[in-house]
Amino acid sequence: MQTIQQSFKVEYSYAVFFTHYLFDQKNPLLKNFFNDYSEQGFQRKALVIADEGFLHHHPEIPGQISSYFSESVPQVQLASEIISVPGGETAKNDINTFNRLVEAVDMYGIDRHSFIIAIGGGAVLDLVGYAAAVSHRGIKLIRIPTTVLSQNDSGVGVKNSINFHGKKNFLGTFAPPVAVFNDLTFLKSLDDRDWRSGIAEAIKVALIKDAAFFEWMEEHVVALAHRDTESMAYLIHRCAEMHTDHIAGGDPFEFGSSRPLDFGHWAAHKLEYLTNFEIRHGEAVAIGIALDCVYAAKAGRLAEADLNRILEVMHKLGFELYHPKLSENDKINLRNGLQEFREHLGGQLTIMLLDKIGKGTEVHELDTGIISDAVDFLSAFQSQLTESKVLE
Amino acid sequence: MQTIQQSFKVEYSYAVFFTHYLFDQKNPLLKNFFNDYSEQGFQRKALVIADEGFLHHHPEIPGQISSYFSESVPQVQLASEIISVPGGETAKNDINTFNRLVEAVDMYGIDRHSFIIAIGGGAVLDLVGYAAAVSHRGIKLIRIPTTVLSQNDSGVGVKNSINFHGKKNFLGTFAPPVAVFNDLTFLKSLDDRDWRSGIAEAIKVALIKDAAFFEWMEEHVVALAHRDTESMAYLIHRCAEMHTDHIAGGDPFEFGSSRPLDFGHWAAHKLEYLTNFEIRHGEAVAIGIALDCVYAAKAGRLAEADLNRILEVMHKLGFELYHPKLSENDKINLRNGLQEFREHLGGQLTIMLLDKIGKGTEVHELDTGIISDAVDFLSAFQSQLTESKVLE
Repeated sequence: MQTIQQSFKVEYSYAVFFTHYLFDQKNPLLKNFFNDYSEQGFQRKALVIADEGFLHHHPEIPGQISSYFSESVPQVQLASEIISVPGGETAKNDINTFNRLVEAVDMYGIDRHSFIIAIGGGAVLDLVGYAAAVSHRGIKLIRIPTTVLSQNDSGVGVKNSINFHGKKNFLGTFAPPVAVFNDLTFLKSLDDRDWRSGIAEAIKVALIKDAAFFEWMEEHVVALAHRDTESMAYLIHRCAEMHTDHIAGGDPFEFGSSRPLDFGHWAAHKLEYLTNFEIRHGEAVAIGIALDCVYAAKAGRLAEADLNRILEVMHKLGFELYHPKLSENDKINLRNGLQEFREHLGGQLTIMLLDKIGKGTEVHELDTGIISDAVDFLSAFQSQLTESKVLE
Repeated sequence: MQTIQQSFKVEYSYAVFFTHYLFDQKNPLLKNFFNDYSEQGFQRKALVIADEGFLHHHPEIPGQISSYFSESVPQVQLASEIISVPGGETAKNDINTFNRLVEAVDMYGIDRHSFIIAIGGGAVLDLVGYAAAVSHRGIKLIRIPTTVLSQNDSGVGVKNSINFHGKKNFLGTFAPPVAVFNDLTFLKSLDDRDWRSGIAEAIKVALIKDAAFFEWMEEHVVALAHRDTESMAYLIHRCAEMHTDHIAGGDPFEFGSSRPLDFGHWAAHKLEYLTNFEIRHGEAVAIGIALDCVYAAKAGRLAEADLNRILEVMHKLGFELYHPKLSENDKINLRNGLQEFREHLGGQLTIMLLDKIGKGTEVHELDTGIISDAVDFLSAFQSQLTESKVLE
C-alpha cells in the first residue's frame, strides 16, 4: 500500500520585553500582554513559581504580583499561592521538586490555556519550563529571568531540562515560552559572582559572531566590572538579540549536529562537574573560552594579539582564567571531558575554534598535546596575575 | 529598550509505511530507511522497546530483529537487549517503568542521533514516545504499532504521554516520530476485542469528515466483522491518511482550542475511568459516538435515517452501544464527565456534533436533559438487540 508522507510546520513566536519594576501598578507591560491574550469564553488561570533565593531578596514581590493581577489583570485567575523552589542545580536534581510542580498544576487546575509564570535564575527556569512543557503536553510559559545569565542567554531561548540520577540536563524538551520579561531592576540584588558570571555568554557570542560587540565590551569593561546598570542593559539586550537570532536563523530544536553556541563549553561542562558545581556556569565558560582561545593561538589559528585582547577583557571583568581541576590527574579528567562531549554529540566531535575575534570555525578534532600546553599556559598566566596583584 | 520579537518555524516530516513481515531479511524497507539516514562520522545506535504481550505472541521477533540489523543495517549499533514493558494503561501508570526506559537510554548511550524503536499498542507507544521525547530533549523515534487502533490513529500522530498519580495523559509532549512502520501481519495475533476496538476511530473520522468512507464501511461491515485482512488494510490506510492530513492541515501541536478529533470522546474518557479501564478505548469511543449521535438526532440536528445507519454499522461490527456505568448515580457521573471535559479544554466547552454523515459542527453547550434521554435510548436499544438475539 502507498506510503503516507506526512509533513508540516509549526510556528512559534514570542517577544522578549525589557523593563524596570515589572509588577508596579504603573507599569502597563504585563497588563497589555494579557489583554492581547484574552479570548472570549476562556477563563485563563496563572500559577507563579519562583526561586526561593529571589523571594528572599525581594519579599515585596508576592504582594505586588497579587495586587497587580487583581487590579490590572482581573480576567486571569491567579492561583492562591506562589510556589517557591530552591535555586541552582539543587532544583534540577530532586525529582520531588518536579513532582511538586506537576501536583500544583493539577491542584490549581492549570490547563493548556493557562499560564505558568517562572521567576528565577537559569536553573529554576529550566526546571519550571520542563514542568510546564510536559504538563498537559504544554502549558503556556512566561519567563521572568532574574540573573544576567538567564536574561541574556538561557531565559530567552527554547530549552528546558532537569537532571536525572545526577546527569545534567538528561531530561528536557525544546519548548519556546509565550513571552519573556527581562526586568533590569532584579539584577541589583545579585552578588558580584552572579553579575560577572552572566557576562561570559555575551563574550562567547561576541567572539564567534560580532567583533563590534567585543570592541564595545573592551570600551565598557571598567563600567561592567563596576556594575554600571546602563552598560549591563546594553550587553544583555545585544546578547539576547544575538541568541534569539541564532535560534531563529538556524536549527531551533537542534535536529542537526552543528552547535556553534557550545563554544568554550566542552571544558566548561567538565569543570562544573569536577568542582561539584561550586563554580558558576559562567565562571566555567570563561575558563573554557580562555582554554579554547589559547588552544587556537597555539594551533596557529588565532593571532596572539587577538588572544591577548580576549584574556585581558576577561581578566579585567574579574574572571579567574584557570582552575586547578583542569590539571587534575595529569589532565586525564579534561581529556575524558572531550571524549564525553564527543559521545554527547553522537560520535562526531564538533568544536568551535576562533580564527579571529568575531569569527569562528568548526573543527572535528582537538590535539590533546596542545590542550595540555594550553592548560599550562593558563596556569602560568593566572599565577603571574595573582603574583602581580600581591606585589601591587 | 526595544522589544525583541522572536519568530521561527520548525519543520517536521515523516513517512508512514505499510508492509508485511517487516523484520524478514527479504523485506528491504527498514534497510532502505536506515541507509537514507546514514551520515558520515556518526555512529548511530538503536534501542528497541517492545510490548511484553506482543513479544509473548511473537517470540521469534527478537531473533529476527537482531539478525536483520546485523546483516542489513550494520551501520546502526543495536543495544544488546530488547527492553520489554507491560502493555495497556499499566505501562503508563507506573513511573518506575518510565525511569527504567530512561536508565536504558543512559546505559546504552542512546543519544540524539540514535533511535528508539517502539513496538506495541497505543499505550506502549505513548510511554516509549514520551521517554524518547524527553531523554536528551528528544531521541529519534521509530514507531511500529501492533494494533488496529495504533496503526490507524495514535501511532501515526504526534502525541505521547504517561499518567501522573492516576491522571490519564497528564504528562506528555507533542513530538513527531521519524518514521512509522505499519506491519499488517502483526494484527493477526490480536484478539477480537482489540481487532474491533480499533475500528471505532475510523468510524469517527468517517462520520465527521468523509461520507464515502462511511459508505465503504457499510459495504464491508461483514468482512470487517469476520476479520478480512484486505478490508482492514484499506480501513487502516484510509484512517491513517485522514488522521495525518488532519494534523498537517490544522494545528498539529494543538495551541488553539478546536479539537474535532475528540468527537465521541468526552463520554468515552469518563466511561474508561468509571470502568477502571476494563473497557477498551475503542469500545468506549463507540459508545461515546453512539451517545453523541443519538443526542444530535434528539436535538433535531441529525436525521433519524442517518442515526440508524450509524448504529447499525457499529452493532454489526459487534460493538456494545450501552454500558450500565452511563446511568450510574442517575447519570450524575456522566454530567461530571462533561464538566471535566469543559475544564480540560480551559473553561469553554467545545463538542463536535453531527449534522449528517460526513459532516460535523462544533457546539459549545450540551443539554443535560437530552443527554439523559440519549442514555435511556441507548439502554433500551441495546437491551432490545440483546433480547432479539436471545429469541433467535
